[in-house]
Amino acid sequence: MRPVFAYKADPQRGQIWAEVFRREMPEVDFRIWPDIGEPEAVRYLAAWLPPADLATRFPNLELLFSTGAGVDQFDFTALPPQLPVVRMVEPGIVQGMVEYVTHAVLDLHRDRPAYRRAQAQRLWQPLPVRTAAECRVGVLGLGSLGQAVLAQLVALGFDTAGWSRSRHAVPGVHCHAGADELDAFLARTHVLVCLLPLTDSTRGFLNAALFARLPRGASLVHVGRGPQLLTADLLQALDSGQLAEAVLDVTDPEPLPPESLLWAHPRLQITPHIASMTQPHSAARVVIDHLRRHARGEALVGLVDRARGY
Amino acid sequence: MRPVFAYKADPQRGQIWAEVFRREMPEVDFRIWPDIGEPEAVRYLAAWLPPADLATRFPNLELLFSTGAGVDQFDFTALPPQLPVVRMVEPGIVQGMVEYVTHAVLDLHRDRPAYRRAQAQRLWQPLPVRTAAECRVGVLGLGSLGQAVLAQLVALGFDTAGWSRSRHAVPGVHCHAGADELDAFLARTHVLVCLLPLTDSTRGFLNAALFARLPRGASLVHVGRGPQLLTADLLQALDSGQLAEAVLDVTDPEPLPPESLLWAHPRLQITPHIASMTQPHSAARVVIDHLRRHARGEALVGLVDRARGY
Repeated sequence: MRPVFAYKADPQRGQIWAEVFRREMPEVDFRIWPDIGEPEAVRYLAAWLPPADLATRFPNLELLFSTGAGVDQFDFTALPPQLPVVRMVEPGIVQGMVEYVTHAVLDLHRDRPAYRRAQAQRLWQPLPVRTAAECRVGVLGLGSLGQAVLAQLVALGFDTAGWSRSRHAVPGVHCHAGADELDAFLARTHVLVCLLPLTDSTRGFLNAALFARLPRGASLVHVGRGPQLLTADLLQALDSGQLAEAVLDVTDPEPLPPESLLWAHPRLQITPHIASMTQPHSAARVVIDHLRRHARGEALVGLVDRARGY
Repeated sequence: MRPVFAYKADPQRGQIWAEVFRREMPEVDFRIWPDIGEPEAVRYLAAWLPPADLATRFPNLELLFSTGAGVDQFDFTALPPQLPVVRMVEPGIVQGMVEYVTHAVLDLHRDRPAYRRAQAQRLWQPLPVRTAAECRVGVLGLGSLGQAVLAQLVALGFDTAGWSRSRHAVPGVHCHAGADELDAFLARTHVLVCLLPLTDSTRGFLNAALFARLPRGASLVHVGRGPQLLTADLLQALDSGQLAEAVLDVTDPEPLPPESLLWAHPRLQITPHIASMTQPHSAARVVIDHLRRHARGEALVGLVDRARGY
């Protein structure tokens, strides 16, 4: 009996995974939820939201894959403690995020929100052009997404810094680590980009106290997770001038309801969580590569550390 | 008597040129218009608009520099025929243009105009994410600006092409040359970027006939010169759906008057000719480098071919 790979996420994208598996890993029986056959045969599961009874239903499960870059939608307490969980680290996700953040940083650096407001008033009003080297961009989170975003910002000549919990080194980037170095990082940042994973310690991280440690008139690009941002604090910081502009690709809740005050704020740009999306072709190939590494007993890229939560 | 370098453009920026000249080329007497001393001593002139009587007023003029990337503001018939004219090719101009076009192309590629309209209606409406490789960008004009812009677009993974009057080769770019290859270039272009110099043959170049040769729903980023675009044709192409969106940094006239129909079109973005601007520090250094090359009898980068007009 062939081992079963069960897929539980968007079925249209699942069809593309199925094709890739048929072609590149025929020794595995790829099945799309709910048509997964005998639960005992399921050895691998890729899911956006795993089934609640996963621990009892699949006694022979060896690997669990998230179909997204984050795993904050997983309830780890409902998973067998030894089950390896793998996040999606895939070129499509990385490329989409690089595009989105590059656009947002250029939009803020080149005063495009002000020019859009001037256009609405039919005003031809050139503002001074500053060089990218005069614009200090700070990225919260130095995982694979943060590092790829920073490489592009460095190439464009921005003065870049990064902050993460543990020490990292990124070429051309002033790297800061841990709570002790957060103040220095924030104090030098004109455009703050949040790419942190959602964990208990990052929930509510973007709040009034943090905004107050940025230089007055700084801007925010939030591409992490909605619950990291305290919405009321953001609106207050925008209204007081502590923050000049904000770009949000994530909100809490999602979809953002029509009655939210965020939609209509003149210095807020909102997009519906589209910064980056897994490309099903390359995602399936990345997972197949994981399965081969697993079979050879090699380390898996994107393996979740449950103690950290990402 | 020291040779005089006369500067006739924005006086504030001229102060920065003066500092650089004092430090790096004290053998030249740098003077800001109109305080230029004896006309016979003027050997070099940097100007946005040269004086109308230049030919008779400065008998010993050896070199004329434009303080901008273009020279279409010069009346060549009023200049001595043998006087070398040098365009500004300077890192600040190049960097500003790379930033502006990268922003504009990402804005169109990632459907940001549609998301801004959705936000105004409080709609959370994700659109499919396409990869940059699926987006065909075509750049008209393969001079130093066009080549620098293309290098950045290639790095972001766009499927790029270029067109110019004479044959060029740019790494990673499908290059087209001359009138014969314009149709093939236009037919494959989703986002058209105009970086052509303004000459008799490019005046009115962006017109209904050209838009009709693009695929339906293509977009335009115009960062050349205002008179290259026929405004009525653009509005008609936007209204018919032949063009989906347009981004204009140049208009005719400039400033664009408040009563222009362009300001209020929902699928038009207008900025007040700010895509790129000479950085006075590096511009002065580039000009000093030209003077040194000229003294050594070497070729000058950016020397204008008057027959071509750029």
